[in-house]
Amino acid sequence: MAHIELHNDLPGIRGLLVYRPETAKPLRELAEVLLVAESTLSRGERELVAAYVSRLNRCHFCCASHSAAAEAQLEDGAGLVASTLDDPGAAPLSAKLRALLAVAGKVQREGRAVTAADVEQARRAGASDLEIHDTVLIAAAFCMYNRYVDGLATWTPSDPNAYRETGRRVAKEGYVNRTDLPPVGAASAG
Amino acid sequence: MAHIELHNDLPGIRGLLVYRPETAKPLRELAEVLLVAESTLSRGERELVAAYVSRLNRCHFCCASHSAAAEAQLEDGAGLVASTLDDPGAAPLSAKLRALLAVAGKVQREGRAVTAADVEQARRAGASDLEIHDTVLIAAAFCMYNRYVDGLATWTPSDPNAYRETGRRVAKEGYVNRTDLPPVGAASAG
Repeated sequence: MAHIELHNDLPGIRGLLVYRPETAKPLRELAEVLLVAESTLSRGERELVAAYVSRLNRCHFCCASHSAAAEAQLEDGAGLVASTLDDPGAAPLSAKLRALLAVAGKVQREGRAVTAADVEQARRAGASDLEIHDTVLIAAAFCMYNRYVDGLATWTPSDPNAYRETGRRVAKEGYVNRTDLPPVGAASAG
Repeated sequence: MAHIELHNDLPGIRGLLVYRPETAKPLRELAEVLLVAESTLSRGERELVAAYVSRLNRCHFCCASHSAAAEAQLEDGAGLVASTLDDPGAAPLSAKLRALLAVAGKVQREGRAVTAADVEQARRAGASDLEIHDTVLIAAAFCMYNRYVDGLATWTPSDPNAYRETGRRVAKEGYVNRTDLPPVGAASAG
């Protein structure tokens, strides 16, 4: 049971987004810009960064949700996501994505853990400044989403099928237009 | 020097907000809802939560900025902020704010560190569900902002007067309408 009365039985962040539409609006728009909008990083790659940081933060709901979204959008999704979460250094990833995941892992620990050498390694592997910026912000944002979801002890479904369905939905609809949530900007039902 | 070329010389998060207006929009709107918009927690109290979490994350820019905003909006601001950052358990705060700061400190560590007992203590001290929700989200959001600012190694001014001026500006203008940044939604200059 969640730490507060949400007046809905939706799992994870969905229950929180419906509970507080005023904060839901920027939270959903931030996810849309970072994970869905046009970028030189593919949507699957960005979901993988989100899933990896969520794993490091031990947030099962976010890790399962964004793993499913990554699997739905990456070639050989399931195998690649599992091996990346276990050890991104050993997973069959591009050198660029591996270096960006290393930066994301540092951000998860603490902002100042990211060194000039970490950034230089990503740059040498072909990452642009904007890709480095967005990777840092995705990692930082999931340090927020993860704490929000677990800090209020929201409901985490145990059935893997629930996440697979959401992963496919997010791949199709994104975060602002997903049809399993009220329109962004809708008033609270409470 | 920042890890990436920002094409501006603005300090801390301001340089990042100007660099990437697409992510700046939801980031500024989130700060506005959490720290400025109507709430049963005063603006000074909410800035104090932001400053405290930033101190725990060792983010000097955010801690100094939000300490200054709290000082500008709390009675006996300077003394109260300094003693709260040192030890919120011993500072002359209301029992409710002390309990909410304890929840925020748990969130900073990890989402699942927040226990039912932590939440119950806040509730017994008079905190509403919405106040508990917003405190958790403020704490979580500063785990993002802090990592964003330090993960990209932005410029941190050392002159305390720079922060005092920003604190007064934010007290007056908030985060969406502050006049030291382009209007929210403006296109990138880059």
